[in-house]
Amino acid sequence: MELREIEIFAPATIANISCGFDVLGCCLDSIGDTMILRKTSETGVRIGKIIGEELPMDPKKNVASVAVMAMLKALKVEPNYGFEIEIHKNIKPGSGVGSSAASGAGAVFAANELMGKPFSKHELIPFAAEGERAACGAPIADNVAPALLGGFTLVKETDPIKVLELPSINGLYATIIHPQIEIKTSISRDILPQTVNINDAVKQWANVGALIHALHMNDHALFADSLKDYIVEPHRSKLIPKFEQVIKSAINAGALGGGISGSGPSIFTFSKNLETAENVSLTIKDIYKNTNIPYHVYVSKINDQGVKILKQS
Amino acid sequence: MELREIEIFAPATIANISCGFDVLGCCLDSIGDTMILRKTSETGVRIGKIIGEELPMDPKKNVASVAVMAMLKALKVEPNYGFEIEIHKNIKPGSGVGSSAASGAGAVFAANELMGKPFSKHELIPFAAEGERAACGAPIADNVAPALLGGFTLVKETDPIKVLELPSINGLYATIIHPQIEIKTSISRDILPQTVNINDAVKQWANVGALIHALHMNDHALFADSLKDYIVEPHRSKLIPKFEQVIKSAINAGALGGGISGSGPSIFTFSKNLETAENVSLTIKDIYKNTNIPYHVYVSKINDQGVKILKQS
Repeated sequence: MELREIEIFAPATIANISCGFDVLGCCLDSIGDTMILRKTSETGVRIGKIIGEELPMDPKKNVASVAVMAMLKALKVEPNYGFEIEIHKNIKPGSGVGSSAASGAGAVFAANELMGKPFSKHELIPFAAEGERAACGAPIADNVAPALLGGFTLVKETDPIKVLELPSINGLYATIIHPQIEIKTSISRDILPQTVNINDAVKQWANVGALIHALHMNDHALFADSLKDYIVEPHRSKLIPKFEQVIKSAINAGALGGGISGSGPSIFTFSKNLETAENVSLTIKDIYKNTNIPYHVYVSKINDQGVKILKQS
Repeated sequence: MELREIEIFAPATIANISCGFDVLGCCLDSIGDTMILRKTSETGVRIGKIIGEELPMDPKKNVASVAVMAMLKALKVEPNYGFEIEIHKNIKPGSGVGSSAASGAGAVFAANELMGKPFSKHELIPFAAEGERAACGAPIADNVAPALLGGFTLVKETDPIKVLELPSINGLYATIIHPQIEIKTSISRDILPQTVNINDAVKQWANVGALIHALHMNDHALFADSLKDYIVEPHRSKLIPKFEQVIKSAINAGALGGGISGSGPSIFTFSKNLETAENVSLTIKDIYKNTNIPYHVYVSKINDQGVKILKQS
């Protein structure tokens, strides 16, 4: 039976996992958008509806449609039908958990399913990254890769994009706080140093190596001990109220560690099971209750699958 | 039966494996020193004999005895006997394959055996690193760790030293050329940049992550593709005649890749089996034959064991 319509879950993701700035990401499970894609008799891609956020309806400007158009362009023969995209946006843009990546990854995954899977998940990554280009100016893969592949991913190369799928640690949960403050991308970018001390760089790649070894060995203690960032966090954490206190209290409450999700302002922490992740959630809420900053706290297991099909017909 | 004397093989090692500057090393099998340690009725440590190289006979200055003395100091009760060390030195000092590390690692391993193993191999690393302090001014672990533990190792932390044992890729061989030129340590050190571009640093830690993933996955192609160094090699390779040509020709002859061993002048390459490693050896020799630089070429499998016992009584 030929598919006409598909509804999918497009997950939020954590990029820039501590030592793994620009390379290490992971996929979340209970935070994400819902998207419906349906075939249209007219060719091309249109945005049918966006619920939840104000985002461009112009298909040349919307991340989801831009990503699908990049995919269609790569086909030898474009299909004799088009796509209508409906987006139920739950991930706030600018929150630091891959809002645009969810749209791009979800859209290309869904369109690929509707076309009978001409592309593998790995092949979809560069198309979703074209969506990121529309959102932030560069075809970055560190959120779209975990959104599509699930679990933990390493962006080994960027031109062309090459992504490795890493094993996950059993039973891992993330607790994420999104303090609803706006950090301008330009400020978040400009605060980063262009050069780094070689000793800090060595410590950073020692921890990247250790973290990947920990994932393979299912070693919680080593994983915790590798969640360190000597390069980016010292600068960007200044932009996030209560950052140090959140990380410290989370660790006191049993978390393995944490850091800045993407370029912030969200803060992620990892815990070895749901119970701890929920304790961490309470602790973090206590810290933010005493500020006048609105916030959301999420608890999610690591999603080993990536984008999920909810319905199809 | 109480041991009186032990003869061991103290292996050469490769440190600074490409992207893993200061953290990644591995252990060799057919290059190394022989050492004999025997108990003496007098306490303390003395150097009995050194064959093959001119090295300090003063136990306060010799790497092997300095390392053993550091170990004895860490014991709650020092033994009521001493140690005499005999060194048959085959690894040339200053060659870049861990000559001093072999002496330090070999000596503490042997003395530990004679004492009935009060320390684990991991616990011996800091003592052997004290030998490195005597040799080069800093208690670096990146050669002593693979010499003691075997296989591939990652120095995750330096203070205190924490080392991870990584899996090896099946059947891996190294081909190493030691061009017999002297590169002053001060020059080799001063040529390194104190700061590095953040984009290069990101590429470097992406490759460290990929290389460790490749070791776990036994993935030759990814291992080869991760043997890249954007930070150190561009500077230090200028000090090594024919460096680029050696690496290129080795890869053409089937090698997976290579780089500068330690701080040079030795160049290492890895191959997936003995036959290829020997072809690579011929190719490298051809390049150096046309220079007037004396050289040695070695082929060795990766030694998964580290220091080996040859005889004991």
